[in-house]
Amino acid sequence: MKTRISILGATGYGGGELLRRLLFHPAVTISHATSRQHADTPVAKVHRNLHGWTDLPFSNPSTDELLQSSDIIFGALPHGASATTLAPFIAAGKTVIDLSGDFRLRCADAYHTWYRQPHPHPNLLSRATYGLPELNANALAQADLIASPGCFATAINLALLPAAQRGLLQDTPQVVAMTGSSGSGASPSAGTHHPERAQTLRPYKVLAHQHTPEILQCAQDAGSPLAGLAFTPVSAPLVRGILAVVTATLTRPLDDSELVGTYRQAYTPFPHVLVLNDREPEVGPIAGTCSVELRPRLHNPTTLHVLCAIDNLVKGGAGQAVQAMNLRLGLPLQTGLQQPAPWP
Amino acid sequence: MKTRISILGATGYGGGELLRRLLFHPAVTISHATSRQHADTPVAKVHRNLHGWTDLPFSNPSTDELLQSSDIIFGALPHGASATTLAPFIAAGKTVIDLSGDFRLRCADAYHTWYRQPHPHPNLLSRATYGLPELNANALAQADLIASPGCFATAINLALLPAAQRGLLQDTPQVVAMTGSSGSGASPSAGTHHPERAQTLRPYKVLAHQHTPEILQCAQDAGSPLAGLAFTPVSAPLVRGILAVVTATLTRPLDDSELVGTYRQAYTPFPHVLVLNDREPEVGPIAGTCSVELRPRLHNPTTLHVLCAIDNLVKGGAGQAVQAMNLRLGLPLQTGLQQPAPWP
Amino acid sequence: MKTRISILGATGYGGGELLRRLLFHPAVTISHATSRQHADTPVAKVHRNLHGWTDLPFSNPSTDELLQSSDIIFGALPHGASATTLAPFIAAGKTVIDLSGDFRLRCADAYHTWYRQPHPHPNLLSRATYGLPELNANALAQADLIASPGCFATAINLALLPAAQRGLLQDTPQVVAMTGSSGSGASPSAGTHHPERAQTLRPYKVLAHQHTPEILQCAQDAGSPLAGLAFTPVSAPLVRGILAVVTATLTRPLDDSELVGTYRQAYTPFPHVLVLNDREPEVGPIAGTCSVELRPRLHNPTTLHVLCAIDNLVKGGAGQAVQAMNLRLGLPLQTGLQQPAPWP
Amino acid sequence: MKTRISILGATGYGGGELLRRLLFHPAVTISHATSRQHADTPVAKVHRNLHGWTDLPFSNPSTDELLQSSDIIFGALPHGASATTLAPFIAAGKTVIDLSGDFRLRCADAYHTWYRQPHPHPNLLSRATYGLPELNANALAQADLIASPGCFATAINLALLPAAQRGLLQDTPQVVAMTGSSGSGASPSAGTHHPERAQTLRPYKVLAHQHTPEILQCAQDAGSPLAGLAFTPVSAPLVRGILAVVTATLTRPLDDSELVGTYRQAYTPFPHVLVLNDREPEVGPIAGTCSVELRPRLHNPTTLHVLCAIDNLVKGGAGQAVQAMNLRLGLPLQTGLQQPAPWP
Repeated sequence: MKTRISILGATGYGGGELLRRLLFHPAVTISHATSRQHADTPVAKVHRNLHGWTDLPFSNPSTDELLQSSDIIFGALPHGASATTLAPFIAAGKTVIDLSGDFRLRCADAYHTWYRQPHPHPNLLSRATYGLPELNANALAQADLIASPGCFATAINLALLPAAQRGLLQDTPQVVAMTGSSGSGASPSAGTHHPERAQTLRPYKVLAHQHTPEILQCAQDAGSPLAGLAFTPVSAPLVRGILAVVTATLTRPLDDSELVGTYRQAYTPFPHVLVLNDREPEVGPIAGTCSVELRPRLHNPTTLHVLCAIDNLVKGGAGQAVQAMNLRLGLPLQTGLQQPAPWP
Repeated sequence: MKTRISILGATGYGGGELLRRLLFHPAVTISHATSRQHADTPVAKVHRNLHGWTDLPFSNPSTDELLQSSDIIFGALPHGASATTLAPFIAAGKTVIDLSGDFRLRCADAYHTWYRQPHPHPNLLSRATYGLPELNANALAQADLIASPGCFATAINLALLPAAQRGLLQDTPQVVAMTGSSGSGASPSAGTHHPERAQTLRPYKVLAHQHTPEILQCAQDAGSPLAGLAFTPVSAPLVRGILAVVTATLTRPLDDSELVGTYRQAYTPFPHVLVLNDREPEVGPIAGTCSVELRPRLHNPTTLHVLCAIDNLVKGGAGQAVQAMNLRLGLPLQTGLQQPAPWP
Repeated sequence: MKTRISILGATGYGGGELLRRLLFHPAVTISHATSRQHADTPVAKVHRNLHGWTDLPFSNPSTDELLQSSDIIFGALPHGASATTLAPFIAAGKTVIDLSGDFRLRCADAYHTWYRQPHPHPNLLSRATYGLPELNANALAQADLIASPGCFATAINLALLPAAQRGLLQDTPQVVAMTGSSGSGASPSAGTHHPERAQTLRPYKVLAHQHTPEILQCAQDAGSPLAGLAFTPVSAPLVRGILAVVTATLTRPLDDSELVGTYRQAYTPFPHVLVLNDREPEVGPIAGTCSVELRPRLHNPTTLHVLCAIDNLVKGGAGQAVQAMNLRLGLPLQTGLQQPAPWP
Repeated sequence: MKTRISILGATGYGGGELLRRLLFHPAVTISHATSRQHADTPVAKVHRNLHGWTDLPFSNPSTDELLQSSDIIFGALPHGASATTLAPFIAAGKTVIDLSGDFRLRCADAYHTWYRQPHPHPNLLSRATYGLPELNANALAQADLIASPGCFATAINLALLPAAQRGLLQDTPQVVAMTGSSGSGASPSAGTHHPERAQTLRPYKVLAHQHTPEILQCAQDAGSPLAGLAFTPVSAPLVRGILAVVTATLTRPLDDSELVGTYRQAYTPFPHVLVLNDREPEVGPIAGTCSVELRPRLHNPTTLHVLCAIDNLVKGGAGQAVQAMNLRLGLPLQTGLQQPAPWP
């Protein structure tokens, strides 16, 4: 018997990536891909890359219908709306995997500060497991509420995690991370208007991006409480991919071999994380996949410098949510994700 | 004394290009750059390339104020709204240069058919001069209502003009023309959403583009009535530029030297039109300018094949409107337009 | 027992796409991916999208080694070199699938004219089957020498095929087709230099592209001998994809329903060919796959207009070669090709 | 009498930008634009944006011819070759403006270390003036050997200069700077191959870029000796522009108003440097010009964060060299540079 899944809010880019993966996943079957606006039209009308691959339509089922037809609920809804929509499924004991930011922070006050709205269900926050497999593989195998990490947060967390796990980090790491336009979602806006996006580099939310607190929480969970994070996001003129440049002060001097050994060892169970030492990470070759390209180095014995490249919609979004589902179902992490992407 | 000009609807890309040229034009001074939404804010807040170059604000003057302060009115408004807004200035005898499609067609029925709305002032249509300098240089010197050509129409007209002027064209020419995203204007839309525009080629308005009738009218005015035009526009993933590939049946056989001679001779008075014979036209090097790259050839003695490249916003828009103004003012055609663009 | 395949010249983009597909193909195993220059280095050093997915190295085996270890030979070599290198494998009775242009034309004189060199093995030309599954599905099931079609030729052939099969085509169709930069191969050149390619549209080989004769041959094989083909290729600033705009004169008047019915029926056995009627074909959503988006329409009762979009490296290259292999092995056409691509 | 200038090595992108500006500069006339390979062919054959604007050919004059015909020599040659070629003109007392890195460092050992070759004329290093107008306006008015700054160095220097001039900087600033592909020059290479560059972000020369020592020297000259610079350059998929994200430790706490006041005051004499406080710097609107968009802020009272955007070929290259020439000739800084660029 295949596990029955439904995707709430399936018209966005996150929903599209979930569909691309889950329609062909060997262990699941899709009960519903919901959309109020597009109910009864084929998903392939919106996600045109699925034309010819599926006849599945969007639907607009009631909560009861969803409860009866679904074992796992994926939320691909905007912040705020997500927690409200998902609450009944959490209450009913379904496995819920949320791609929004609503369940990533354990602290309701931090949510209020960074998302500029009070959390609609603060009592649920303590029940969530942060869906970063490289941090929480064991916990995810049992989790009923999984908060899939943000795209920038994924890249930055993976850059810091092995050092954080050894208690090597302190102070306020600095990050500059560039992102492709698909990170802004499927709705046209000034920031994604092709004439203005195609030939520019533009910082935004400078030192104020809402992924900041989940990165701090992840470092603390791993073993390195931090004072802060100075994060500069930059809009770049590509479609897919994030490249993060991370600098951090170490708690003690390291040499190259200890550093590389630390990273290699931490990611040995996760072969989709490629720890490079003879070339630089870049986003092109890993776009479309859950692969991670990562290179740690020392600027000096107490200054860590890490480059990390991911696909923002896959490892930084829907693909990572599928990884979390796989762990929850007791499947190998990369089930249904085992295709390298076209390149160039 | 400088000629006083005003630009109605100055927040779009057409308005921005007019400002870039007219702020530095030796013979004119700008009285008003109008915008209801942005009145009293600096134009450089919207047209950020003008930051540091001008303190001019947008304004929202009454018609009377505009009449008193302006010798020439540029209309950079949407179709339909343009004719309505410009009518009082035409009535008052001002020189009006309209960048919209509202005054390009002499036939109100054709306007109704192609623009899907009745013309608001059909009685004004006969007073307009089509603002293609290479066709109407003499008439433009006297014109009080100038209809600046459409972007695609400019490229296709220039590809056909020398042959049309000799009565060489007949039947239904075929055109495929690709355009950059700036042709869609400054408002974000699905067709200009960067994630979807940046790596695709997408035809639109196939055999149904509203520039079709003005191209037929131009060919007829030049001396070659045509049966029709089969025009396929294609959205391409660049910002600026149109490349038109035009094929037409000739009324009699030509040889290469007569063909090239015809084109060279027709464009001798217009040195911004580069008739190439040893490389193909391309849009990159002429982006940002009124230059035209054009190459006529014969596929066989009675089949003409012309490639033509322009910048859609400059020669295909605001720059050509400035050329028309220059002719109206008795100035050299390229006054204020004499800078090659950066390349690459 | 899996079929043993080798890829000769595996470092280019064609070789990379073959590896991406064949490494994960359920019915084959790769014996050799050859490269003189990169022998003994991992293929993932060159095809970085394969990093983490395979340890396969390039190798430089002798012809004897290849003969002993391979059931099927893929040639991904330059024109001219390909026929010379593949001749011994053809002589030995191996199944050979050539991605170059060397075996596409049955006429050695035409090869000499269009490829500007005499054919090194003209006697082999009559043994080749043109590897377009939609034309030659039955013949490919028996073929020992398969000439995989050119990228432009694939798009244009598929646009014309249903009409050609009914004897509906005549005269000289006109084609404008735009291509992404990956069609120029993996070696940097002036035409693919990013600063100059990224914001331009540039025609090349106008009315002189070497895919012309294979398109004429395909139309004739299908049932419609043509007088010629007027083909204008255009370099566009995207990476993957071809969009062809094809116009042809019909031998008799058609109406819309007969036209659409003809195309639908012809492609019923080939569900990867999407015959659209409510939107235009575009390359973005099918990039990375063997899918084809196609829309036939009538400009007038005797003028056919077809838009066709493919991925130049997949359906127009390595993916189509895998389709041909599948037919040769008696497998379903899309075996190993069953994943929609990421989009956007 | 106009000043006679010659450009040595005029076929690259630096040479092209010099020609675009100097052909129309009111105070100079071009004697020679040299190229061995292209001698006697029009410069517009190579710099196609100049087609229709000039008949000037490349030439290959002897040193004597250049000495007799030129008052100012611009060097647009590769590192190493530049110093050797320019030495006789320096010896002869000509005003020499070098766009290469050969005369930027006063220390021959640093040159040897960072450029990986011994300096061919170390004795000349002390005679050079660093051509950053915002640092050295007075010295440049007298300088006979001007070393025009590197593109990255320009952006980073301008980000740090006002703070450096007040002695506010210490330790090792951190920089991440992204660049367009035109910075790699006019010769195709793997790093600028469109299929691989167009959709990736790729760091290179991490913590090892040769502009590092000239940035340290500039900070020291301004008044803030630094311990080092941790600089990560990133290749981004646009053509023109650099965005630098700079973080530095201050020698004493500052508040926002002192910081902004410091930057505003420092750049008051340089109105092409736009110190922003209500939007972020971006490269699009200033591409093609000498304008600089810059935003300083405090991450905390002792941590400075500056964003800086320039055009790498204009303010970061040829345009800045023209600024230096203007100062040397006693002209206003922006003479010949007074056009905003097209945007978008």
